[in-house]
Amino acid sequence: MAMNILVAHGGGPTAVINCSLQGVVEAARSSGKVGRIYAARFGAEGILAGDLIDLTDVPAETISRLGRTPASAIGSCRRKLTDADYPTVLETLKKFDIGAFFYNGGNDSMDTCHKVNELAKREGLDLRVMGIPKTMDNDLVLTDHCPGFCSAARYAALSAAELALDASALPIHVVVLELMGRDAGWVTAASYMAARLTRCQVLTYLPEVPVDEDRMMADIESAWAKGQGLLVTVSEGIRDLDGRPLADTGIVDGFGHTIPGGTAQHVSDLIMQKLGVKSRAEKPGLLGRTAIPYVSPVDRQEAYAAGRYAVNAALRGESGYMVSIQARREPDYQSSMELVPLAEVANAVKTFPPAWIDGGNRIGEGFFGYALPLMGGDWPEYAFLR
Amino acid sequence: MAMNILVAHGGGPTAVINCSLQGVVEAARSSGKVGRIYAARFGAEGILAGDLIDLTDVPAETISRLGRTPASAIGSCRRKLTDADYPTVLETLKKFDIGAFFYNGGNDSMDTCHKVNELAKREGLDLRVMGIPKTMDNDLVLTDHCPGFCSAARYAALSAAELALDASALPIHVVVLELMGRDAGWVTAASYMAARLTRCQVLTYLPEVPVDEDRMMADIESAWAKGQGLLVTVSEGIRDLDGRPLADTGIVDGFGHTIPGGTAQHVSDLIMQKLGVKSRAEKPGLLGRTAIPYVSPVDRQEAYAAGRYAVNAALRGESGYMVSIQARREPDYQSSMELVPLAEVANAVKTFPPAWIDGGNRIGEGFFGYALPLMGGDWPEYAFLR
Repeated sequence: MAMNILVAHGGGPTAVINCSLQGVVEAARSSGKVGRIYAARFGAEGILAGDLIDLTDVPAETISRLGRTPASAIGSCRRKLTDADYPTVLETLKKFDIGAFFYNGGNDSMDTCHKVNELAKREGLDLRVMGIPKTMDNDLVLTDHCPGFCSAARYAALSAAELALDASALPIHVVVLELMGRDAGWVTAASYMAARLTRCQVLTYLPEVPVDEDRMMADIESAWAKGQGLLVTVSEGIRDLDGRPLADTGIVDGFGHTIPGGTAQHVSDLIMQKLGVKSRAEKPGLLGRTAIPYVSPVDRQEAYAAGRYAVNAALRGESGYMVSIQARREPDYQSSMELVPLAEVANAVKTFPPAWIDGGNRIGEGFFGYALPLMGGDWPEYAFLR
Repeated sequence: MAMNILVAHGGGPTAVINCSLQGVVEAARSSGKVGRIYAARFGAEGILAGDLIDLTDVPAETISRLGRTPASAIGSCRRKLTDADYPTVLETLKKFDIGAFFYNGGNDSMDTCHKVNELAKREGLDLRVMGIPKTMDNDLVLTDHCPGFCSAARYAALSAAELALDASALPIHVVVLELMGRDAGWVTAASYMAARLTRCQVLTYLPEVPVDEDRMMADIESAWAKGQGLLVTVSEGIRDLDGRPLADTGIVDGFGHTIPGGTAQHVSDLIMQKLGVKSRAEKPGLLGRTAIPYVSPVDRQEAYAAGRYAVNAALRGESGYMVSIQARREPDYQSSMELVPLAEVANAVKTFPPAWIDGGNRIGEGFFGYALPLMGGDWPEYAFLR
């Protein structure tokens, strides 16, 4: 008998989260085993309100456009479910006779997923629950990497290289680039690619390394003195020696975290004040997770495959797992999907290996051995004439 | 007899200024009439210092890479030449036996070009002088548009659309996007494309329309209330009713202009303080003129063609002109090059037509009729499921 399924997005979108949605819908359709295909409008908010979008009869052509549509086509939210919310979640699942629930998100979403699965088991509900990984932060454990990261990394790498070319072609200022990442430096690390693709000096600061502002300024001064232009890349969440954000917005988010902000501008101001060197700060912000022209083809394919894999696993009776990406890099890059228990993923965090950071502000070969195949290759070869 | 030529870049680079350089070099080579091909290292600075790069024997493959290399491969500067500098300029031209000089830049560069041409005539120098237009600001007169603008406009259009999708998929904040343009709103106007490509609310503010902050906040409040997400796009140089920049860096540039900055952050702060609505500001800054994946194919082709046209015109004896782009839009877009006198271009400014701005913060059909063909077509068709 055909079962109904529900898919929902949690947290910040990425450039490829809709690819996973496409994978879910297309796998459900081709299985012949799915009745209605529902999506939660604006994630947990839609589930709690019983506000679902029926995707069952959406034309195949529209579904195929998901592969080139950034952000979330069904909507997402940052609401973290509390214990009091779970009974309402189950009500919605029952009301729409949902047999399989797919939650596409990061750490918090995997925790939610795990709790829904446990509760359904306790209540004797015939429900399969599957997590589909998504986070540009790349901080989920038990997976080689996370869909969304590879494209955000490619954005950081190529944007930094393009900025570095500008910074060295018209070396009238230090250019400071801020990239997303409150606690994890994975994306910002990729911006050090600019040092490999151009001849500009590049210094990169991740939240994993406490920043001594005096030393930072000394390093900037000496790199600037080389006269080839200077690009400084910083994670939005870099912290000082006391663990305080270098700059913050003064705003507290829904999870009680202070939102960092203005980090690049702060560093740029320091450069002007302390070194007397002109500087400017750039902060593409959300563009780093939405820019379709920088999507990594590997990311697009894997995000899609993860969606399909989740549906097929649920249809054969699996429940309580997250789809995990297994990867080998030699002799060439290949990845495959498998299942890992949600209980082991929920709320755990994969940290950036300190051994991959050289001298506090350069990113070493270890990272690029890991990340280069994920970012999709096809790197530009620029003309250098000076 | 073969003549030597010199090419130089002036002011801020664009994503396609190297395409014009490629056109200059390739036209010079294929003409059979050019001896040495020189480029000034870092623009006017290189000319004054007699520091030229000899491109004569650079491999063709390297030259062809210029088409995909952003910023200036030969370097540029913001130094504005004074009357005292011109004799030194002529010395360099004589020393390297330059028969034709090509200056690729905006208003200030065309003024320099004009003065070099006049001086050479007065001194009886056998020199041909040709301006090649370049400015993302699109404010040169007597040309339909300027190479560099079309790509910056495409960047603004697509980035705004991608941000709008994010802003409406996770409508927890108003997103404010700052785009380059101190005095001219041409590029920022293109960001209103987000209203045509998505279902997000979009408000756009150009420097040509003085901003009443109270009215701006009222408009933002009512657009936000529609609940489809809100993207506010602003030129960095928007001014208040008294003509003062809404936000400035407090820094004065080499031409004596105060550098605007932090405009999006200022608007975002106002939204949070006055409306109590969460907001975030994005400022891709220089990325708007360097991002190769957003280059308009029309721009790439025309920038290249302008470089070639300048060389061929000089070789047939013309001097004292800027290459101008003539365009027709019906029944389909076609452009061609011609020459306009430098004297008529120097220091004149093309302003954004006020009639193309609806209600102070929406961009009308007039602009899109003008700009759509320039931005290169191939617009994304996104999937909307909510």
